[in-house]
Amino acid sequence: MDAAPLYRQLATHYRQAIAAGALAPGDRMPSVRALMARHGVSLSTALQTCRHLESQGLLEARPRSGYFVRPPRRATLAPVEEPHPSLPDPAQYIGIHQRVSAILARGQARPDALNLAVACGAPSLYPAAALQQAAMRVLRHQPELFGRPVPFNGTPAFRAALAQQALAARMTLGADDIIVTHGCVEALNLALRAVAQPGDVVAVESPTFYGLLQILENLGLRALEIPTSPQTGISLEALDLAADAYANIKAVVVVPNLQNPLGAIMPDAHKARLAAWAEARSIALIEDDTYAALGNDDTPLPALKAFDTSGNVIHCASLHKTLAPGMRLGWIAPGKWRPRVEMLKYAQSRPNEALSQLAVAEFMTSGGFERHLRRLRAQLREQRERMGEAVAAYFPAGTRLNVPPGGFGLWIELPGKLSSERVFDAALEDCIRVSPGVMFANSGRFDHYLRLSCGSPWSRELDQAIRRLAALVERLATS
Amino acid sequence: MDAAPLYRQLATHYRQAIAAGALAPGDRMPSVRALMARHGVSLSTALQTCRHLESQGLLEARPRSGYFVRPPRRATLAPVEEPHPSLPDPAQYIGIHQRVSAILARGQARPDALNLAVACGAPSLYPAAALQQAAMRVLRHQPELFGRPVPFNGTPAFRAALAQQALAARMTLGADDIIVTHGCVEALNLALRAVAQPGDVVAVESPTFYGLLQILENLGLRALEIPTSPQTGISLEALDLAADAYANIKAVVVVPNLQNPLGAIMPDAHKARLAAWAEARSIALIEDDTYAALGNDDTPLPALKAFDTSGNVIHCASLHKTLAPGMRLGWIAPGKWRPRVEMLKYAQSRPNEALSQLAVAEFMTSGGFERHLRRLRAQLREQRERMGEAVAAYFPAGTRLNVPPGGFGLWIELPGKLSSERVFDAALEDCIRVSPGVMFANSGRFDHYLRLSCGSPWSRELDQAIRRLAALVERLATS
Repeated sequence: MDAAPLYRQLATHYRQAIAAGALAPGDRMPSVRALMARHGVSLSTALQTCRHLESQGLLEARPRSGYFVRPPRRATLAPVEEPHPSLPDPAQYIGIHQRVSAILARGQARPDALNLAVACGAPSLYPAAALQQAAMRVLRHQPELFGRPVPFNGTPAFRAALAQQALAARMTLGADDIIVTHGCVEALNLALRAVAQPGDVVAVESPTFYGLLQILENLGLRALEIPTSPQTGISLEALDLAADAYANIKAVVVVPNLQNPLGAIMPDAHKARLAAWAEARSIALIEDDTYAALGNDDTPLPALKAFDTSGNVIHCASLHKTLAPGMRLGWIAPGKWRPRVEMLKYAQSRPNEALSQLAVAEFMTSGGFERHLRRLRAQLREQRERMGEAVAAYFPAGTRLNVPPGGFGLWIELPGKLSSERVFDAALEDCIRVSPGVMFANSGRFDHYLRLSCGSPWSRELDQAIRRLAALVERLATS
Repeated sequence: MDAAPLYRQLATHYRQAIAAGALAPGDRMPSVRALMARHGVSLSTALQTCRHLESQGLLEARPRSGYFVRPPRRATLAPVEEPHPSLPDPAQYIGIHQRVSAILARGQARPDALNLAVACGAPSLYPAAALQQAAMRVLRHQPELFGRPVPFNGTPAFRAALAQQALAARMTLGADDIIVTHGCVEALNLALRAVAQPGDVVAVESPTFYGLLQILENLGLRALEIPTSPQTGISLEALDLAADAYANIKAVVVVPNLQNPLGAIMPDAHKARLAAWAEARSIALIEDDTYAALGNDDTPLPALKAFDTSGNVIHCASLHKTLAPGMRLGWIAPGKWRPRVEMLKYAQSRPNEALSQLAVAEFMTSGGFERHLRRLRAQLREQRERMGEAVAAYFPAGTRLNVPPGGFGLWIELPGKLSSERVFDAALEDCIRVSPGVMFANSGRFDHYLRLSCGSPWSRELDQAIRRLAALVERLATS
């Protein structure tokens, strides 16, 4: 008779099955009930078996779904390199839209492809049903809603709920300081139009999300790409050099928390320094704080606006990454530019419709939003870690990887300066859609990087996709 | 015994009551049942009495509400003067926002005032409950709607329904030719940004709605104000003179059907000439066709786009005047500028939320929209005529008036070049809010005009307000 307890013997059996590939990463482990029936063991032994394998890192428990096989842990990849705080390239007009939209169009032409390109969560991550219920309650209570003009600057209830949320990120805002917009994209448009004219120079993080570059291009603004750390965000030293070289910088645009695509979080000390620096130089500071609620920690990350003492910081954010991709709810707290932003918003698109605002206000004040965010943070952390482990396990040597402390994406430096657009094309052929680094800077400095979205629950399909992507990267890198 | 039939005797009695003011315009006539009880007459006599008074223009029947006292008919006022097709003033940057927003703010600070300023119908004119029901059906059928990203350029169902509607206005558009926007205001922003750069010259109607002037101001465009007829719209002769004088006109913006504030409808022959002229001159033609469905006639008015043979006409429109003030649903059919407008829309605000689009698509395909429009047209016609009669009855000599064949407003020329802003201030003091002509042109050419909204059902309160407004105009004109 075997000396080891029964659960250990069973665990060894399943460890071997995993090692042999009979159970692959992402597969569901037989249920406790199935183990009891198959091996004639007690409930307690079956449970102990699973817990033991979990403690060894071979299985993971998913709430209400049972145990699943985890990818093998291997040595982690080296992090993406830190930039030098050098003088940036000359300010230049952005000419990225054609490139970006061609890439987006090629991706959209393959709706069958596994989408690792979008910086957003899968629909299952969002409380759509609760919001639907809230919207139906609003409609039942206000049957005349669609017949009445929409409130100027947004509904009072939603703006009050946002002001409450802002407090958690250490911003002291009244409801009247907030203007509701069509997503963060409209907020950024308004902020830039408020402080800059066509031809003006705006400093941005490099790399940054292509949405911002497209906005700059469409507004006829010139961009100064400032080196940005995957750990601590925009380089304050490089920004200082840039401001000495360019007397006419009108604004700095940053994503202070969980920067896209790097996932960097600016330390609070950097935020304070940046706010003071911008004020002293009379340069408007525009923040896109869309991702702040998606960090690993339940303690909210302070906004740049929290360090604003003079109204010089324009705070922009939205809810379609954190709460509802199907709503286009963003907002702007324009500080001292409020009259001008109000005018621009009115002349550009008039106030937003009320229904989504009212439904979300109800969801926020009921506490549903906080509960949802706690779940979402845990789920995203899990998804980032699983994908990070898979990339580390499968990608060839020379790959560098950042698994950031929050948000939707991994930022990957390809080995041997491999062209990300070649990887994009080859992956799309293989039914996998990624975001090539070429989309994230006008300069071409990140052409050999990839952004991979971790927005979907981990699965065998994802594991296999990362494996195929890795094989493809290896083939292209050595060909 | 009186020789006249009983119903005539009763009619005389009530005619005297009306003449003496015991029954004032807008008052409800005692019901048929009340007449029977009060005077001991038969149903047929009571009915004959009311019909006789109606045939004499003293009463009006309102469906399901009974008979009401009409304002006295007097000689109609002379129409507002036709402009000379002269060379316009030099192109100029617009500086109207401050003036307009100060006037709007003064008005909004008096929420108790009777609002004759807004170019929109009262909530009771719109089928809010039916749209609420449609929205709730959409939410029940698509409970995950808020969790899914919104469709690019708008939902297919709504765009298809709009393409169907466009057919009625003689435009041949596919669903793909249409991009859904945040109201007509965003559509106009996109159209202007697509065809003009800051500093460029754009020809506009004069007078025109201040929303357009604010857009031009905010985009840094210069305006050429083209004389516009209250009957036939923009002067094609003046436009031709302007194009000879200015080689660099980038666009002409017109409201071809029920122009705001004039109520003019361009004859089809003018529309055809203008479309051909703009194409031959390579000047983009932008139309705001928001009011087309609100004419007296149930036959739809053709859009300018119906006369477009080369994609040179950009069609902009919306539903918040015709269907739902509480939705911000507009659209643009950008013709040959479609790729550029798609890019600008994406970079400016991303696609619209889906819910309103889906609800309206259902309402449109069910036939509810057409039924609603027939009712709305009849109601607005009634309201315009009642207010027109009251203005004609009460305003002092020298007033000129247009009661247009559709839409929301009356355009009134004040006697003796009286300042409309003085009238605005005095009226607001007296709890009546109007739109002074000073808001409708950069040039100041319409400072002695008023726009009065006929968006609300006629009532005794409205009759009294017009009477007070008239007294106030008379006092100011002679002081």
